[in-house]
Amino acid sequence: MMKKTDVVILGGMSGISAGISSRRHYPDKEVVLVRKEGTVLIPCGIPYIFGTVDGPENNVIPDGLLESNKIELVTDEAVALDREKKVIELKDHEPIQYHKLVLATGSMPIIPRIPGIDKENVFAVRKEFDYLKKVLNKMRQAKNIVIIGGGFIGIEFADECRKNKGLSVTVVEMLDYCLKLAMDEEFSIEAEKRLEDTGVKILKKEQVVSIGGKEKVEYVELASGKKLEADIVILGIGCVPNSQLAEKAGIELGYRKGIKVDSLMRTYTDPDIFACGDCCTRDSFFDGKPSAIMLASVATSEARIAGANLFSSVHRKNGVISVFATYVNGRAFGVAGLTERVARENGMEIVIGEASAPDTHPGGMPDSTMMKVKLIFAKDTGIILGGAVSGGRSTGEMVNVIGACILHRMTANEIVAFQMGTHPALTSSPIAYPFVNAACKAVLPIRGCK
Amino acid sequence: MMKKTDVVILGGMSGISAGISSRRHYPDKEVVLVRKEGTVLIPCGIPYIFGTVDGPENNVIPDGLLESNKIELVTDEAVALDREKKVIELKDHEPIQYHKLVLATGSMPIIPRIPGIDKENVFAVRKEFDYLKKVLNKMRQAKNIVIIGGGFIGIEFADECRKNKGLSVTVVEMLDYCLKLAMDEEFSIEAEKRLEDTGVKILKKEQVVSIGGKEKVEYVELASGKKLEADIVILGIGCVPNSQLAEKAGIELGYRKGIKVDSLMRTYTDPDIFACGDCCTRDSFFDGKPSAIMLASVATSEARIAGANLFSSVHRKNGVISVFATYVNGRAFGVAGLTERVARENGMEIVIGEASAPDTHPGGMPDSTMMKVKLIFAKDTGIILGGAVSGGRSTGEMVNVIGACILHRMTANEIVAFQMGTHPALTSSPIAYPFVNAACKAVLPIRGCK
Repeated sequence: MMKKTDVVILGGMSGISAGISSRRHYPDKEVVLVRKEGTVLIPCGIPYIFGTVDGPENNVIPDGLLESNKIELVTDEAVALDREKKVIELKDHEPIQYHKLVLATGSMPIIPRIPGIDKENVFAVRKEFDYLKKVLNKMRQAKNIVIIGGGFIGIEFADECRKNKGLSVTVVEMLDYCLKLAMDEEFSIEAEKRLEDTGVKILKKEQVVSIGGKEKVEYVELASGKKLEADIVILGIGCVPNSQLAEKAGIELGYRKGIKVDSLMRTYTDPDIFACGDCCTRDSFFDGKPSAIMLASVATSEARIAGANLFSSVHRKNGVISVFATYVNGRAFGVAGLTERVARENGMEIVIGEASAPDTHPGGMPDSTMMKVKLIFAKDTGIILGGAVSGGRSTGEMVNVIGACILHRMTANEIVAFQMGTHPALTSSPIAYPFVNAACKAVLPIRGCK
Repeated sequence: MMKKTDVVILGGMSGISAGISSRRHYPDKEVVLVRKEGTVLIPCGIPYIFGTVDGPENNVIPDGLLESNKIELVTDEAVALDREKKVIELKDHEPIQYHKLVLATGSMPIIPRIPGIDKENVFAVRKEFDYLKKVLNKMRQAKNIVIIGGGFIGIEFADECRKNKGLSVTVVEMLDYCLKLAMDEEFSIEAEKRLEDTGVKILKKEQVVSIGGKEKVEYVELASGKKLEADIVILGIGCVPNSQLAEKAGIELGYRKGIKVDSLMRTYTDPDIFACGDCCTRDSFFDGKPSAIMLASVATSEARIAGANLFSSVHRKNGVISVFATYVNGRAFGVAGLTERVARENGMEIVIGEASAPDTHPGGMPDSTMMKVKLIFAKDTGIILGGAVSGGRSTGEMVNVIGACILHRMTANEIVAFQMGTHPALTSSPIAYPFVNAACKAVLPIRGCK
């Protein structure tokens, strides 16, 4: 027996988002979501399972979203895709014939080829409930944890794990500073310092050459000759698109083996098959070149577009701006668009504007935090290319203000005249508002003065 | 003896902002700031003097800003302006001859003609240090305070005064709900409830007809016949431009007696005289008509433009969008652009999109608050006209995200594809982000479906 339906979606968080969007746009279509996992975790919340929220059960996307949007859930593994017959074959269930298919199969953690990588208690960050529950249980018995990779995931894991009493946490980073692919050095150094203040050890310009121990990991060996005791190792060195099913079905892949999609989120190969989220390719907003950025916010944006476009071309995607934030030992760090380092490495002529102010006014209001903003403008045109923020919790939305301005190619001159809303308890003062003041400082250098 | 200088600025907060801007653009010019007040208060912080920050001395704009920007301060009252001679006459100092003049004389509180309004202990909210110190001292001895006017100032005063033990606080509002000129009813009702939860009494559709007592106020009489005991009365019914000096000098005034300025912030009358802040006229971003909005954020935006344009036309102002936020008993409320009520009263055909989500993800993260977003779009074009937010402290920057999108006339379709940055501790989840989801809900109705 063959099940037939209008829309089949394969995947996790982006799948849910694509499903909601297709339901909204096509109220009469049947939508079936197929996924291996019984429960879908909030991907960005995974590090917080190990400290603040205390367990994967407190970090799930509620399935009520599926019910309320009349999306049928099939919990099973998709094992093959027959594009001619338009059929998805499942491991345990009958195959499903689709009219439109959305691939939202996400990403897989990179497992480096290090001797000993397959020892017990060496974990990648898989987005799987039972797997992470196991990691949590192991961590609770551990004394020494080594985290390989000082990117977002590594830093957030370190900051959460250190909240467990008696656990010694060490981060090993290959580059000269943590978060290097995400932030300029001065922000990274601030974040590293916050983390080191908690007792976390950070080793930089260090590479893991082997993982030692009998069956279980006992230590990690570095290129410098250092040996770190470890009864648990976490790999946080990035992800690659999970595109195997698509590849086997003859769908064209692109950069880093992502599924190639057009600006309507359709695959290059098959107009009835869409892809969205970490499994597909993206281009940069700034130069149109392929981008390795993987962010839940980009993935859900793509999912909303894919779901809406299934039967009619409603939305078109932009290039990836890359807007994100992290939170280290009570201080937030965020970036929208290009960093100074990336802009300069790309040979762009730029002007920097920087400003700081308390995020309340007066600074004596409760919970006031110093907010620092750095903006990057194109020298020729004055158009904003990027911004970095460190501060309190409002940093999370401050980078979205900057993101909105980047999207609209706003100039420093226009930002000077920006009518930001302010309030004593909620924002910096109108006279010191650092986003605007950073632009003010860039205006003259852009014009070639000073 | 006549003092001569390049730039004279008259005024308080906007004056400082204009001064900093002119210094940045014209490093070689002499700038003199003339103001009556020895100390300038942060205007939006004034209600917080009466509770959270405990005294006007904790709510001042530091004069270090003047020194570091080489702005000479003359503390004196400007009594006359001679445009022919380009001279400002002062009460106690020698006159000053200017090349360029900036009027940033701000606003004056409206004093209604109510019998008894001149009794002792009836106070307007003047932006004067000693005056507010006196109000604070009186309040500390008071048992019953009546606040006339339930706009921002009235509500924020009420919320701060109630923090003083043993003080009974009553707000008298003429309209059918508080904050009516600022917010749609459902947000106002939420704010009123928060305030009433603290014990503050709110009387609506009520008007004060007289203020009774011997020399000092003893009670307030309402049109309904009610009598409220009061040993202190605060007037919070709005402000008008302070343009007397300009008027006497023959400078053209406009709407509500504001000083008429062009988009470069020059007065209509004299190209060497600029005006900015609450003393000047403004037009709406949405229809170009005169606007009565008075916000520190608009004032400082104008001041930055005026200061930059003194000797060369650098910046141009936009119409007023009106972006602001308030904070009532721990919950923030903000609006950017038009409210539903105002849009409908102007005969606009609109579509509303609404969404709510916790401002962290998962919702179990610490200090998570439910954030509610309401967006208003033009039915014809899908362009965003306004947005209202209630939530936690990130509301303050969330309205700035919306403000940036309004400024760029972003459509609901574009907002659906918005790449917002998200983080578990700092923002709503990427799947539930209410600004984007509110736009998603508006897309079909804009297209005429559902």
